[in-house]
Amino acid sequence: MYFRYCKDTQRSFHSVPCRLASGEFRLERDTFGELKVPADKYYGAQTVRSTMNFKIGGPSERMPIQVIKAFGILKRAAAEVNKEYGLDPKLAEAIIKAADEVSAGKLDDHFPLVVWQTGSGTQTNMNVNEVISNRAIEILGGKLGSKDPVHPNDHVNKSQSSNDTFPTAMHIAVATEVHHVLLPGLQTLHDALAAKAEEFRDIIKIGRTHTQDAVPLSLGQEFSGYVQQVKYSMERVRAAMPRVYELAAGGTAVGTGLNTRVGFAEKVAAAVASLTGLPFITAPNKFEALAAHDALVELSGALNTVAVSMMKIANDIRFLGSGPRSGLGELVLPENEPGSSIMPGKVNPTQCEAMTMVAAQVMGNHVAVTVGGSNGHFELNVFKPMMVKNVLNSARLLGDASVSFTRNCVAGIQPNTERINKLMSESLMLVTALNPHIGYDKAATIAKTAHKKGSTLKAVAVELGYLTEEQFDQWVKPSEMLGPK
Amino acid sequence: MYFRYCKDTQRSFHSVPCRLASGEFRLERDTFGELKVPADKYYGAQTVRSTMNFKIGGPSERMPIQVIKAFGILKRAAAEVNKEYGLDPKLAEAIIKAADEVSAGKLDDHFPLVVWQTGSGTQTNMNVNEVISNRAIEILGGKLGSKDPVHPNDHVNKSQSSNDTFPTAMHIAVATEVHHVLLPGLQTLHDALAAKAEEFRDIIKIGRTHTQDAVPLSLGQEFSGYVQQVKYSMERVRAAMPRVYELAAGGTAVGTGLNTRVGFAEKVAAAVASLTGLPFITAPNKFEALAAHDALVELSGALNTVAVSMMKIANDIRFLGSGPRSGLGELVLPENEPGSSIMPGKVNPTQCEAMTMVAAQVMGNHVAVTVGGSNGHFELNVFKPMMVKNVLNSARLLGDASVSFTRNCVAGIQPNTERINKLMSESLMLVTALNPHIGYDKAATIAKTAHKKGSTLKAVAVELGYLTEEQFDQWVKPSEMLGPK
Amino acid sequence: MYFRYCKDTQRSFHSVPCRLASGEFRLERDTFGELKVPADKYYGAQTVRSTMNFKIGGPSERMPIQVIKAFGILKRAAAEVNKEYGLDPKLAEAIIKAADEVSAGKLDDHFPLVVWQTGSGTQTNMNVNEVISNRAIEILGGKLGSKDPVHPNDHVNKSQSSNDTFPTAMHIAVATEVHHVLLPGLQTLHDALAAKAEEFRDIIKIGRTHTQDAVPLSLGQEFSGYVQQVKYSMERVRAAMPRVYELAAGGTAVGTGLNTRVGFAEKVAAAVASLTGLPFITAPNKFEALAAHDALVELSGALNTVAVSMMKIANDIRFLGSGPRSGLGELVLPENEPGSSIMPGKVNPTQCEAMTMVAAQVMGNHVAVTVGGSNGHFELNVFKPMMVKNVLNSARLLGDASVSFTRNCVAGIQPNTERINKLMSESLMLVTALNPHIGYDKAATIAKTAHKKGSTLKAVAVELGYLTEEQFDQWVKPSEMLGPK
Amino acid sequence: MYFRYCKDTQRSFHSVPCRLASGEFRLERDTFGELKVPADKYYGAQTVRSTMNFKIGGPSERMPIQVIKAFGILKRAAAEVNKEYGLDPKLAEAIIKAADEVSAGKLDDHFPLVVWQTGSGTQTNMNVNEVISNRAIEILGGKLGSKDPVHPNDHVNKSQSSNDTFPTAMHIAVATEVHHVLLPGLQTLHDALAAKAEEFRDIIKIGRTHTQDAVPLSLGQEFSGYVQQVKYSMERVRAAMPRVYELAAGGTAVGTGLNTRVGFAEKVAAAVASLTGLPFITAPNKFEALAAHDALVELSGALNTVAVSMMKIANDIRFLGSGPRSGLGELVLPENEPGSSIMPGKVNPTQCEAMTMVAAQVMGNHVAVTVGGSNGHFELNVFKPMMVKNVLNSARLLGDASVSFTRNCVAGIQPNTERINKLMSESLMLVTALNPHIGYDKAATIAKTAHKKGSTLKAVAVELGYLTEEQFDQWVKPSEMLGPK
Repeated sequence: MYFRYCKDTQRSFHSVPCRLASGEFRLERDTFGELKVPADKYYGAQTVRSTMNFKIGGPSERMPIQVIKAFGILKRAAAEVNKEYGLDPKLAEAIIKAADEVSAGKLDDHFPLVVWQTGSGTQTNMNVNEVISNRAIEILGGKLGSKDPVHPNDHVNKSQSSNDTFPTAMHIAVATEVHHVLLPGLQTLHDALAAKAEEFRDIIKIGRTHTQDAVPLSLGQEFSGYVQQVKYSMERVRAAMPRVYELAAGGTAVGTGLNTRVGFAEKVAAAVASLTGLPFITAPNKFEALAAHDALVELSGALNTVAVSMMKIANDIRFLGSGPRSGLGELVLPENEPGSSIMPGKVNPTQCEAMTMVAAQVMGNHVAVTVGGSNGHFELNVFKPMMVKNVLNSARLLGDASVSFTRNCVAGIQPNTERINKLMSESLMLVTALNPHIGYDKAATIAKTAHKKGSTLKAVAVELGYLTEEQFDQWVKPSEMLGPK
Repeated sequence: MYFRYCKDTQRSFHSVPCRLASGEFRLERDTFGELKVPADKYYGAQTVRSTMNFKIGGPSERMPIQVIKAFGILKRAAAEVNKEYGLDPKLAEAIIKAADEVSAGKLDDHFPLVVWQTGSGTQTNMNVNEVISNRAIEILGGKLGSKDPVHPNDHVNKSQSSNDTFPTAMHIAVATEVHHVLLPGLQTLHDALAAKAEEFRDIIKIGRTHTQDAVPLSLGQEFSGYVQQVKYSMERVRAAMPRVYELAAGGTAVGTGLNTRVGFAEKVAAAVASLTGLPFITAPNKFEALAAHDALVELSGALNTVAVSMMKIANDIRFLGSGPRSGLGELVLPENEPGSSIMPGKVNPTQCEAMTMVAAQVMGNHVAVTVGGSNGHFELNVFKPMMVKNVLNSARLLGDASVSFTRNCVAGIQPNTERINKLMSESLMLVTALNPHIGYDKAATIAKTAHKKGSTLKAVAVELGYLTEEQFDQWVKPSEMLGPK
Repeated sequence: MYFRYCKDTQRSFHSVPCRLASGEFRLERDTFGELKVPADKYYGAQTVRSTMNFKIGGPSERMPIQVIKAFGILKRAAAEVNKEYGLDPKLAEAIIKAADEVSAGKLDDHFPLVVWQTGSGTQTNMNVNEVISNRAIEILGGKLGSKDPVHPNDHVNKSQSSNDTFPTAMHIAVATEVHHVLLPGLQTLHDALAAKAEEFRDIIKIGRTHTQDAVPLSLGQEFSGYVQQVKYSMERVRAAMPRVYELAAGGTAVGTGLNTRVGFAEKVAAAVASLTGLPFITAPNKFEALAAHDALVELSGALNTVAVSMMKIANDIRFLGSGPRSGLGELVLPENEPGSSIMPGKVNPTQCEAMTMVAAQVMGNHVAVTVGGSNGHFELNVFKPMMVKNVLNSARLLGDASVSFTRNCVAGIQPNTERINKLMSESLMLVTALNPHIGYDKAATIAKTAHKKGSTLKAVAVELGYLTEEQFDQWVKPSEMLGPK
Repeated sequence: MYFRYCKDTQRSFHSVPCRLASGEFRLERDTFGELKVPADKYYGAQTVRSTMNFKIGGPSERMPIQVIKAFGILKRAAAEVNKEYGLDPKLAEAIIKAADEVSAGKLDDHFPLVVWQTGSGTQTNMNVNEVISNRAIEILGGKLGSKDPVHPNDHVNKSQSSNDTFPTAMHIAVATEVHHVLLPGLQTLHDALAAKAEEFRDIIKIGRTHTQDAVPLSLGQEFSGYVQQVKYSMERVRAAMPRVYELAAGGTAVGTGLNTRVGFAEKVAAAVASLTGLPFITAPNKFEALAAHDALVELSGALNTVAVSMMKIANDIRFLGSGPRSGLGELVLPENEPGSSIMPGKVNPTQCEAMTMVAAQVMGNHVAVTVGGSNGHFELNVFKPMMVKNVLNSARLLGDASVSFTRNCVAGIQPNTERINKLMSESLMLVTALNPHIGYDKAATIAKTAHKKGSTLKAVAVELGYLTEEQFDQWVKPSEMLGPK
């Protein structure tokens, strides 16, 4: 039975030990009556009740741990402000200590609820209140489940409602993930691509439009387009953040702030900003902040655009690296794992594949967020857990995949200069450079003949008597076709 | 002024002339009062009122003409059945004649309303009622706008409600488009691909997995995969049709069939089936048929799958046809238009591009249909016009694009056998065939050395002394690598 | 035959008359040979060829006229700059005059091509080049189709490629639509909602969370949430515009700017900015500007967020206005058209329905844009026409629907104060206000008893002897529950 | 350290104990060299390498356990068939035993890889091969990591490739989830709704169209629409299954079946069918089966339609149950948990909220599947892990949520007959029944007057002298308005 409670979690490395050898219980109660609670857990009756009522999807569908940690930050901030407004300092300090353990990830095993619960996230808010209350009680030497001296509602949830705390935790969690995972990941990718763009600056290659041969550009120029995409990816994400920094805390049940104090909202936002180092402010309109989650839809739209960029970049790199013999073969991608037990040289562009799968997932997540965001009614949107799950997932996957893609692919890309030169020098479209010298019609005749005979432009041009080999070499210079004159 | 009313339409080739030289009007009235109606139009006050209240999107956003034609069929069927149930035969016949003109497309200019109106399509139902009423009045020698002797509500709309007629017209329109445009288009594409699969049966080429070189298959085998996708495309569409054949007619306002007669629903469905030659039946549950349009969401899902197939096929064909020199170059695609004024041989795979754009559009349309379908409330879904617009658009685009893609691309595809042979014979993975003869390790050494030196397998194998040239030719036979042993 | 060419268009009110009585033709040629061109049309062989090769979707699928007009602006700007760089001023002036006619909408009938063509929009660029060339030839007294003295490629398309002009026209068209239709539409809606929020400031009503009764707020507060959503809608759109203002012109075929002159890109962008009054600049990286259309995906994401906001607002308004007897009935919506021939007082919230259908469409369009944007390859994205069609459609529909919704619904909304008061005063949650006076437990008993007996809080409270009628009236004041203390 | 390997998993209740006290390692090797493998794990070097190369998303992003179990079934089936074709029976039996442990879930902790790996799922196939090989070695008394006597490639993967085994496992996993979770869940919901439709057969209530009051229907009729939706949900899912039953096994690397034996494909499919009790067959075209996953896109489309149905049903139920005082209040939903610590009677429709969140998620998952499905190239689609993850997630969530929604909501729904009667009897649209007796105009006058005065139809009718109280009672019978005459 030992594993019964410790094992069914996807979270690990917590430092708070499971303390009981087997399935012992204590009794807790909520307004619906008594329930057995595992004796080694800090959560209480409302949490257990939710696990009974929402058997949907299993452990992998749990509320993202980032939301739990964000709640830890929020509950600490609220306790600090409540202390200012008169909450017993002893209780406040115990709540703060317990909340810190939550945000530090020390109590991860005590949050068993899945995303597919009430759409306001009330049960997760209560899960947090119960855990902090019991842990604070323990700190103060009380009895778990007694709600004394720290009551989950009256003290931990003081001046708060699920309806404003959950969206506050959503914004804290998302902003944190964006800053700690997504943006650094994108920056890593950006820098690696920029380094490659610089490294490849003088490698002239054939351009391709409509997937067909076109006029040349440098490999560095080609990569500079990717650099620009990633640079703009970061700008897009940052442009969406101001509205994510707005916190609903202080709106309580319907946005009016009933049962809070004037100034509570502003002080909590300031405390959260201080704790996280991110520029959170109180939402200027709490009705919007509870009833709509447009800020997350907007950010998800930015992530969707990032995914679009990633799909393009990863697709290009795998096609440019296709081969080794029968593809385009211009790039040599790092070989990270056995591609096949038979065929040497078969480098599967697995990092590109992971990245493009992530991109598809983010596009899908975005639609889920959009549908959820559009279906709020009156004073409350009740797709909150689903929305935050998807936005967090998108941010995390894009950030992680950017790092993985950079380290295991981009950083090690080598140009196959021999192949690049061959393709470029054989290209029929170099004939364009002859237009000013022999006219369009003769140039076209050269190209058409070369295409028909499978010959080179130079050979045909000389054979047709239009120019000499020296003239060809002098006039057809790909290096002079890379910019305006 | 002549063009004022004839020109602002996207529909054409009608045979009913505009009869007035300039902007003359007559007065018509509905329960909200009198309105000026263009004298050369059959529609009445409710139609005009809708044009005033819904200035959204302009002429290109009009109700799809297929819906109007479907209404013509339905109104004829209803008139036939109403005659059975006692409607004055003279009126019934005039309604039938007018309805026939609607379904024949002779009155297309008389339906100016946009999709973005009431979500039940009531205004389009009234537009149809008004046009048929006035045209029937004209046939019977009456005065336009008098509602005498043919009343738009009492006679044309008898035993009907917008709430059951509009979904009925949706299903008729969609089923007709599927049968007359989509399925024939897919069949055309299927047959052309099947012919190519047969034609290419013996052309052995390199396979590509992860976009990388892999073991060989025949070009015919490769195309057989496309054939299977299109075959299944048709099966998928057909599998969704049984629920599209169900008609809501007879449910009237909320699905109960209030104000209809027992048997009306069944007889109307039978009449529509007879008029269209399609197996329409009356919906077994009218509440579902009004309040949900899951049948269209389902069909849209099938169209979405077709789009996915088309994206794959068109992408493959453009990449296999990429070049002429610096791409894969295995296929030669028909050249349909100047690709560039400079570069001969530049065939842009424009038909693939049109097809893939259509595929993307269908995927988007599907989400619109999904969102609309999910947002019905109580006894009525009010996203009807939007839903039918998107489903019709998807069916039409896929059907038309299949024909265009077939005629202007697939039918003319030629293999570049020289290129195909070269890529295939140079491929390092052919070394696989040596495993049974010299063992995996020696085979691997051959392949690795060849890759490193850019040499052929045969040259390296002989050079290493592992086998003779004759042995190599005998053992490495791509034609024997195309199936199980 | 007269109508053959004039009728099959969705565009109207052009001032250039059709000049031929029936189907006369002239011969034009491109590099593929001769083709018959309708004698009354300015377009040439490449346009006709496209109509033959892409029979997909019919007239309603034509390239949006906004793209054509944007091309008129671009071609004028290019001609101005080309004149600076040496283009014969006489030719330049004729091109400018013809281009002005295009951007003024005078030549709309001369652009028959559908969206479903080559993915670079090349054929539409050539359509524009042909029309301007022939119109300029006509202005200069030449012969249509002679390409003399104004050649479509050499003069109209000078220093340009489809690959940079089409994305430039995309951005001009989209930015113009955003500024002239979308943002003014949103502003109109914003102002009307803000006026209502002010008007309804003192109307206290029941709040609803989870669609269930909750604590009160004012109707003005409720509307202030909508105001905030629309305000942020505008901010979101504006936040995406900087990247839409970047123009690809000057990148030519692959982004290098081959065959342009140093400074051309910047001067064209400046000219376009001057012509449109919008802050266009030249794209800092032309490779990104041709190969990706992330800027449009980003803007589409903003439009998707706007759609989400609109869905929420329109849903709320229709539910709050539901009834007249059996719904929530708090709002009285304007009655714009007969809702039913039977039932007086049945106001169908048709403007809400149009708006929510638009919202669903925009969400779908966004997925199409996303899919297209993600599928660019190498130096060119070839989903351009599809992408711009969808973004323009979303911007137009949202802008138009905002105005329609404002004028025909929001502006006329009246509160049903009697109903609002009744629902509010009967609400059991007002008991909350008693907590500080008689304690939670007694308050709960009052509420539970009232719920069970279907009685009022006051009656039960007095009956239970917890307080007097006067105390109740003094303590339970909804007007003091609207904010923090 | 104990928890180091046992804790970082979301899977539980396995019966194979972790056997080592702390982080001991053994060395294993693949063609890239040696790697440390945790000594208590059965997996080998390639698995470890994947964990190093793909640090994307963490434990909650692991390959769904259903895929692992499906692999267990497939590997057993392949071993059986390989034995027929000559594989040493001793090895075959050990492989079968180990594979059975995999499919029984006894080795869940040995599959640490995430979805975001190579797009062919190769690394998961190798993970399975390594685990089965080492477990079989252990069974036969050999040394872990020795590949002797059971080699992961030569024996466990015999006649197989990742390219055909992974899609086979995808189909097995999905079909199993559909049969064991989704369809039973939908059936449960169907039956509960059908019971309610029967139970509510004679409860007459007001209908609502456009969310507005309309003519009556019975509550049973209203629920019958939901029943039909769920019935069709099951039909839709079943209609998509034939193509999911097709297995790719036998196609090996590119679909040709290289290195398999004639008959292998058919025998494996038969063995899988026998092991699962589901009608699996070998795919008629293996090229399609590897290169496209249209079958999963199709099924996902069916799930998307189910989600649309669920959104409608759950939305209706929460709105019909809204209140208790200020909503529609026709249904009383079961109270499962404290809705608020303040307000008795506040039943939050939390099960509806979980269901609608699930519906939104499924719609999003569907787009991810669509994007992935459309992006296959040549002989292989490399979005396999992402696609199967999403389809499994959708099936599981819909199945689980259906059961939860049924047990905790639908089964306990009670009609508020008093409220239903009140709303119905006050409804102005009952006036419709008077039309045949006193004519439309008088009926309209009654209704308009009643609406204006807030009076009842009967009172006004009598007051106006149009009829007697007795006549009203005789003529206005809602029970006779529920069907055609």
